[in-house]
Amino acid sequence: MTDVAALDAADPLRGLRERFALPDGVIYLDGNSLGPPPKAAFAELERAAREEWGQGLIRSWNAAGWFTLTDSLGDRIARLVGAAPGETVVTDTTSINIYKVLHAALALRPDRSVILAEADSFPTDLYIAEGVAASRPGTGLRLAASHEPIESLIDARTAVVLINHVDYRTGVLRDMAALTARVRAAGALVVWDLCHSVGALPIDLNAAEADFAVGCTYKYLNGGPGAPAFVFAAQRHHAGLVQPLSGWWAHAEPFAMASKYRPAAGIRRLLCGTQPILSLRALQAALDVFDEVDLAELRAKSLSLTGLFIELLDPLCREFGLRIVTPRETQRRGSHVSVAFEHGYEVMQALIARGIIGDFRAPDIMRFGFTPLYLRHRDVLDAAKALADILQSGAWREPRFAVRSLVT
Amino acid sequence: MTDVAALDAADPLRGLRERFALPDGVIYLDGNSLGPPPKAAFAELERAAREEWGQGLIRSWNAAGWFTLTDSLGDRIARLVGAAPGETVVTDTTSINIYKVLHAALALRPDRSVILAEADSFPTDLYIAEGVAASRPGTGLRLAASHEPIESLIDARTAVVLINHVDYRTGVLRDMAALTARVRAAGALVVWDLCHSVGALPIDLNAAEADFAVGCTYKYLNGGPGAPAFVFAAQRHHAGLVQPLSGWWAHAEPFAMASKYRPAAGIRRLLCGTQPILSLRALQAALDVFDEVDLAELRAKSLSLTGLFIELLDPLCREFGLRIVTPRETQRRGSHVSVAFEHGYEVMQALIARGIIGDFRAPDIMRFGFTPLYLRHRDVLDAAKALADILQSGAWREPRFAVRSLVT
Repeated sequence: MTDVAALDAADPLRGLRERFALPDGVIYLDGNSLGPPPKAAFAELERAAREEWGQGLIRSWNAAGWFTLTDSLGDRIARLVGAAPGETVVTDTTSINIYKVLHAALALRPDRSVILAEADSFPTDLYIAEGVAASRPGTGLRLAASHEPIESLIDARTAVVLINHVDYRTGVLRDMAALTARVRAAGALVVWDLCHSVGALPIDLNAAEADFAVGCTYKYLNGGPGAPAFVFAAQRHHAGLVQPLSGWWAHAEPFAMASKYRPAAGIRRLLCGTQPILSLRALQAALDVFDEVDLAELRAKSLSLTGLFIELLDPLCREFGLRIVTPRETQRRGSHVSVAFEHGYEVMQALIARGIIGDFRAPDIMRFGFTPLYLRHRDVLDAAKALADILQSGAWREPRFAVRSLVT
Repeated sequence: MTDVAALDAADPLRGLRERFALPDGVIYLDGNSLGPPPKAAFAELERAAREEWGQGLIRSWNAAGWFTLTDSLGDRIARLVGAAPGETVVTDTTSINIYKVLHAALALRPDRSVILAEADSFPTDLYIAEGVAASRPGTGLRLAASHEPIESLIDARTAVVLINHVDYRTGVLRDMAALTARVRAAGALVVWDLCHSVGALPIDLNAAEADFAVGCTYKYLNGGPGAPAFVFAAQRHHAGLVQPLSGWWAHAEPFAMASKYRPAAGIRRLLCGTQPILSLRALQAALDVFDEVDLAELRAKSLSLTGLFIELLDPLCREFGLRIVTPRETQRRGSHVSVAFEHGYEVMQALIARGIIGDFRAPDIMRFGFTPLYLRHRDVLDAAKALADILQSGAWREPRFAVRSLVT
């Protein structure tokens, strides 16, 4: 049996758990969907509301740096994704940012007309790609079927490849460098969706020569529910960057009140309208935590946690027919473990009733997210024990666990 | 001399001032740009952060109603704009919502190709209209020049007219019923931008048979810096509503994780991605204040405040060449008074230095917003006195008042 106490005692990140407000009696394995609040976020929100909003009022647009928070927070995320300063902004939602960069990519490849994505992609990526294709005559959307390698579909008509770094359903981690090289060699551009990897493992967009990326800040980054997303564009594309959501925050002189649009220089071209400052301040407090984090240590701990969980689940797989969907090879694994089981919905509800919170994705996937910032090996052990007990006792068969809720 | 004490004593809304956190020594005349915090917003933010986010974690998407806040807050704004339940959602930014409804309107009028707007419109409306036109081959943007009545340009090619209810620069209030009737008689659709009217005066979109509307929640609604905007679509258009920002929140079954987009029924088609919940909670507290407000009383007080300010400014106009740009006819006046003056920038900085906060819009407009929820007639008098003193003493000539800041 693994000595979880020894692993936790040797964990270089163990001190970070204290930075988070976690409810008593909960083992939180859903930080891959919504991260918990860093304690500092409460104080920061109060300060922003009472001082900046209440005392500073309109003056805070200048005095408190509200107008450039999109950029300053973007530059802090840059360190986590391997971007240079001035290549990332925090703004809008992942969906809207995908829309912007797909349009931008298509405009950069006017002789090509196909958006290539995966049928198993995170759904909103596909919905937005559909919206882009439908609104641009002649643009097509081509989807790689399950288990069909997307790289095998890249051809001379491919303008842009939209791909998830970690698959939300399976937890598969893609080889960013290899796939980006393959896309670029074919003359196409790549958009990486980092929603399920940023904040959980090291990312190096510029080392991979990636073109565009988007990502979410409320999962592993712990920015708060619905906190604005980020978008990255490699500096070499900035001069030619056009996107149709050309709002006033993307204007070269937003306060000149000119009637004609003239795009800002650089990454601000990917902005659009006024951003929710209070939510951005909570995100800022969440990013402060990462200032102390060595991403290699983060990754090592993540793999240790997910590896332990997989090891503990193996006997349950044999006994109850659970199937671990997430790869065992560490270089192909993100920071969550997905387990297929016919009664996964009910089992997950039974776990949640015991304070072990993961989530479920249709049709049959239980997801367990292991955030290295605040989870311990003993949490992994306790979660696995509870899962074993629920399966062995049949506790998941209680009718209340079959009730479906709107958001699962 | 007007007896401001008597006017304030007779003000039926006088009790509402206590609901707001206003700094000492400030007369805040910029609620038309960023409303001040309702005191309840502080408690609501803290509750949402500590309890919903911190204790509820992912469970709050269901348990705290996060997923339907777009709709529930939209229905509360509906009362303020004359919409029926299910016709309004709070989401994204004004700019992005304009993008959605312009696309939707163009799709509803496939035999027409022109977006008509005003050259003096709020700039982001024009920038977005440019973005829509540029991304839709064959679509044109036509602008009415200053002082050219936009209605005179409506013709058989006009698909949609985008117009501001209150002009941000001049404070002119448009006749919504008359202009909407004119647009509809010509077979076109109308998009009303309510940013500078909502929360300051009664609006009746459905009585006017308006098609679409957008508006901001951080000005007269006091929802907090950058709080998400709202968008209205008349129920009769819902079945045919298509817009290209087709993100997962607009899906008929967002948690079915289908790979194909299928639009939700009704107004949720105008949603896109995940919204910033903390900012929405502050907005909710701000909307609570309006539950007690009779909009006819609000309008009467607004006109009383702006009328008094205009009356007090008349002697300064004669003496110093100030020019009141906002109409004197009450039916053509919004809730702010705009004053043109060559040295308006410096004068406004001198006023701000004395705690009287309005703003400046290029090239020469000082704007004074009069929010009836928390301003008193004596504030109007004090502001006018300070303005007179600054002009008479020449205090605005101090070099520090000429320093330009990023956000004016």
